[in-house]
Amino acid sequence: MFTNQEIRLDLLKQRAFNLRWAAVPEGVIPLTAADPDFPCAPQIAEAISKYASERYFSYAPAEGHSFFRESVARFHTNKRHVVTNPDFVIAVDSAAYGILMTCKAFISEGDEAIVFNPVDFLFKYSVESCQGVSVPISVPLTPDGMIHIEALENAITAKTKLICLCNPLNPTGKVFTKVELEQIGNLAIKHKLIILSDEIWSDIVFEPHVYTSIASVSEAIKQQTVIVTGYSKSYGLAGLRVGSVIAPNEKLYQQMLLASDHQSTTHGCNVLAQVAVKSALDDCEDWLQGFVKHLKNMRDICVEDLNKIVGINCHAPQGCYLVFPAITDTGMNAETLQTLLLEKAKVAVVPGLSKWFGDRATGHIRLSFATSEEILKEGLNRITKVLNER
Amino acid sequence: MFTNQEIRLDLLKQRAFNLRWAAVPEGVIPLTAADPDFPCAPQIAEAISKYASERYFSYAPAEGHSFFRESVARFHTNKRHVVTNPDFVIAVDSAAYGILMTCKAFISEGDEAIVFNPVDFLFKYSVESCQGVSVPISVPLTPDGMIHIEALENAITAKTKLICLCNPLNPTGKVFTKVELEQIGNLAIKHKLIILSDEIWSDIVFEPHVYTSIASVSEAIKQQTVIVTGYSKSYGLAGLRVGSVIAPNEKLYQQMLLASDHQSTTHGCNVLAQVAVKSALDDCEDWLQGFVKHLKNMRDICVEDLNKIVGINCHAPQGCYLVFPAITDTGMNAETLQTLLLEKAKVAVVPGLSKWFGDRATGHIRLSFATSEEILKEGLNRITKVLNER
Repeated sequence: MFTNQEIRLDLLKQRAFNLRWAAVPEGVIPLTAADPDFPCAPQIAEAISKYASERYFSYAPAEGHSFFRESVARFHTNKRHVVTNPDFVIAVDSAAYGILMTCKAFISEGDEAIVFNPVDFLFKYSVESCQGVSVPISVPLTPDGMIHIEALENAITAKTKLICLCNPLNPTGKVFTKVELEQIGNLAIKHKLIILSDEIWSDIVFEPHVYTSIASVSEAIKQQTVIVTGYSKSYGLAGLRVGSVIAPNEKLYQQMLLASDHQSTTHGCNVLAQVAVKSALDDCEDWLQGFVKHLKNMRDICVEDLNKIVGINCHAPQGCYLVFPAITDTGMNAETLQTLLLEKAKVAVVPGLSKWFGDRATGHIRLSFATSEEILKEGLNRITKVLNER
Repeated sequence: MFTNQEIRLDLLKQRAFNLRWAAVPEGVIPLTAADPDFPCAPQIAEAISKYASERYFSYAPAEGHSFFRESVARFHTNKRHVVTNPDFVIAVDSAAYGILMTCKAFISEGDEAIVFNPVDFLFKYSVESCQGVSVPISVPLTPDGMIHIEALENAITAKTKLICLCNPLNPTGKVFTKVELEQIGNLAIKHKLIILSDEIWSDIVFEPHVYTSIASVSEAIKQQTVIVTGYSKSYGLAGLRVGSVIAPNEKLYQQMLLASDHQSTTHGCNVLAQVAVKSALDDCEDWLQGFVKHLKNMRDICVEDLNKIVGINCHAPQGCYLVFPAITDTGMNAETLQTLLLEKAKVAVVPGLSKWFGDRATGHIRLSFATSEEILKEGLNRITKVLNER
């Protein structure tokens, strides 16, 4: 599994948008958006086909089908050590919408939310969509750096409502330690804040690192936490648009359901996407383990090759299939380097722009390594050649 | 086709929510939400299975796949006589979201939108979600009544931005005439208003009535019109959550795309839903014709049987698979009658409450007849028996 032979470039060139194969010029290798080059697990396709063959796509429940909610609850109870009531799970059309929903539920005009810097742009974007104020706090640029808990507490004001936790952290690949999570959780309790725990990357963690959900640290912390997750990263289901929101209790569940706008039918989650997730969680554990094992090898290749290039400094991520090398010593900024790599190396990367990750991402680029060894090495060779020939 | 034997009550009881089989007590016939009891066309299930079997569900384009946009554009060009550029089509996760998007694009705080009374609640709901003011104008309660165009013009103020047209009109089953549409369109031109043309019911029109899209009446009217449609009514795809938004030109398209929030990945349309719609529009014309033919027979049975009941007055709808009988002469209000029918007749109907349809729906109930002759007759017999035995 996870060989180059499995990858169907013909299909990727038709189907993979968002800066990927179908959206780049012919001949370019897109190490851009975090979306695997491999086909999904065959069990998922079979589950979809079976459900579709019965030809009923009636209105789903606003909160999601019980088969979905039960599967998600079982997963979080057994694999994340967060005892989860299926009645507090909501099927949503993406983790991105789950983040927005959480902001809608807890942020009113002028309210503040703590947002990491750097982190994926969706947190700031969602807070500001609710007329809230995104308050950036610096988090380590290296995966093994520790969060500065005093800085976090100093950023809390009377208007703070939410701490946005992204664990593992996109783009740096940091996996938070239990000690850090306990510190963050205790601050949330002390200041009566909700923790938005974005766990979309939580399957992609490389040993010896271990994933800890902040909601598993203590019951008191769990009661302050809304978990948001999705299935695009682990299972390659971005186009199905599906995620989960998990509330710890009835009160927060009702607030989240109201914020979802599902009951009016304006939003909701496609039933086949729910079928796919049930299959992913129930039937694809071996497939996922194989994928993570492959990714760990790809990470090692990626880090080793990038560090051989003069001017590039790359730390090994603990989680996520992303590397986030510092590129300042090349003498170029991220956009100049991005353009050079696209034009000369025919490799597309994501520049560490403030608008995508916060201003501390400046001087970095981000590359995804969720591809075959052959494609990854070809991409890295092209980058190496262009940068060494300058 | 469209026989009782085709209906899988076992699956409906697992899958049909939103007041339908899976959401009512055992033994109750739900003539409630507008969602067919029949399985979808087999071609749709096959198209989904084929796409799924290739196991790639990568990120779709924000605006929708080109196969989807081209199919939708071809349909509107050929079947609706609205020459449609695929580049101005957006795949959305429901017609309901299409309505909200249109309001987001054109309504700011305090802006006004003309909303029919009665009509589906989603128009008022969406306008108010954007801090707009929903200005109700009375439309005929009988399908053959004509709109009072002076009343519409009198409702227009300097703050009016939008006319919300629902054609065919849910819940009355009125299909607007070309003359009426021209009058409405000319008002929109004169007052520089956008027309939101909700065409989700446009396939379900009973001869001799003919559907006219307001965007087909003249090029000038088309340029003021955003078409919103969906595929749940015609093809039974509510659970796939899919609709289309069609802008007439680049400027309105860009406004709609911005309002969609698709580019941030917060919202979007599931790829399998897009595959289903392509198959529905390209391969299922015969299936749809058979469905509409069956529905016309069901309408006739429904209207005839209901009118035999003392106190119930039912007009034959020109479009939609809904009847909307006046029930005031029963001496009951709609909620009392709804409860009586649920408890004694074991038939669920939708009461004509102000919150669902506007205050002119008072004294009516709404029934869906998208089922088999056997189930429909059983439901009508039960209603007749209970009301005649009072």
